[in-house]
Order: sequence, then structure tokens, then C-alpha cells
Amino acid sequence: MDISHIEHIGIAVKNLDESIKLYENILGMKCYRIEEVKDQKVRTAFFKIGQTKLELLEPTDTTSPINKFIEKRGEGLHHIALNVDNVNTALNELFVKGIKLIDEKARDGAEGLQIGFVHPKSANGVLLEFCSSK
Amino acid sequence: MDISHIEHIGIAVKNLDESIKLYENILGMKCYRIEEVKDQKVRTAFFKIGQTKLELLEPTDTTSPINKFIEKRGEGLHHIALNVDNVNTALNELFVKGIKLIDEKARDGAEGLQIGFVHPKSANGVLLEFCSSK
Repeated sequence: MDISHIEHIGIAVKNLDESIKLYENILGMKCYRIEEVKDQKVRTAFFKIGQTKLELLEPTDTTSPINKFIEKRGEGLHHIALNVDNVNTALNELFVKGIKLIDEKARDGAEGLQIGFVHPKSANGVLLEFCSSK
Repeated sequence: MDISHIEHIGIAVKNLDESIKLYENILGMKCYRIEEVKDQKVRTAFFKIGQTKLELLEPTDTTSPINKFIEKRGEGLHHIALNVDNVNTALNELFVKGIKLIDEKARDGAEGLQIGFVHPKSANGVLLEFCSSK
């Protein structure tokens, strides 16, 4: 499995519009895109820093995983996503190595990516996503 | 202020040696360096993914900020570091914009970097580091 770069870093926020202003001020750059990912019940705003995006994630529903995260831990760093050639191949390799997965097969993510998550119990509490372009 | 890339992502762990094995298994790559940063009371292990390092951080003392973080929130994502040309210039720009800082002047970090932190209250609970080479 070749990981080429950190595709994005997900940040859980309560109010996307306020957080966009905050991050535009800190980073000195504009958010380049806002997208709703219905499958994950989030609205997300993107910033690009080198090879990596910062994704602000606002829950659109109380049943959103992001809402549950915020209720439990507050706003903050939520996950990191590693770019690979093929997510299904990567997930299969991880499964064979005995790593606990949330997704054993890829599903649709933001920006047309295919994504799959490793369980935080297998990565010192870090929610790790693997992703690839379709 | 020009941010060129995400320099590193810091991950708080209880046991560095066990976590190195875990991440080497997940990432399919070797940790390339282990370093103690006495000022921050941590021992840290580095992995390189594209432009960005993953830094596993183990507290060397109960008074380490990493130990306090783990006691409060458990192991997991701790901070992200943004690379700029000059940290002191960046910190000064942030201060002028009214952003709450932990460090108003740069101090020494791992791998010979100059570093300074923004307060998580100014960034939706995210601990943001700015860093530059000396």
C-alpha cells in the first residue's frame, strides 16, 4: 500500500459559517468550496494548504456522527485522511493485517472520493480515513 | 502570511514503542526518527507522508502537556502544524488580527524548527502550531 499524501484533515465545528470566517482570518486564505455530504449528514467547507485540505465539518442533523463527536468531546480535530491508489485494496490489506476497520468496503465521500475508515481503537484513538479518486 | 504546507500532525500516545509498531503496521512504512524534546517533555517518533510528518508524542513526565491532554481526552489527534517562512512574523500578524495566542514569540521545537501555538479557543478547539526552519 502506497500512501502518497495526507488528502485532508477533518475538523468538527458547530457553526460552519462562523468557522469559515474564523479560519479565513487565521489562514489568510479563502474557503474554496462548500459541499453537503448527505450520507454523512454534514456540510463541509474546504481550504487547501499544499497537498492537504482542511475540511470544516458541521453536522446537519442530531444523528450525524459529527454531532455525536461534538457532544462527547467538543469541537476540534476529528480525523485525518490518507490518499492511496485504491481504497478497497488498502482496506483489504489492513483487514488481513488484523487491523479493526469501520468500513470493510469503500463508500462515497465528499469531492467524489471513495473512502473507508479504520477504527480508532486500532490507531491510538485517531480516526484514520483512507481515500482515493474514483 | 504564506502557509506552504502542513508540516506535521501531532498524535498523543501513552506508549511510544507500542504505537510505533502499530503505525508501522497500518502505514506500511518505517518510523524514520525518534527524538526527545526536553522543553515539551515528550519523546516523539516521525513518519513521513508526502509533505507532512505524523509525529507520535509520548509524555516523559506527568507535568508534560501531552500527559495532561491524555488524562483529559485520551490518546488521539493533538495538534496540526502549518509551515511558514518566519514564525515570528506569522505570530505577529495573528496577534494584530486579534487571534488569541499561546506563544507571542517563537520557541524551539523538534527537528530544529522554530514554533509557536495559537490558542484552541481561537480555532474551534484545534491546537494550531505555526513553524519554520531556523
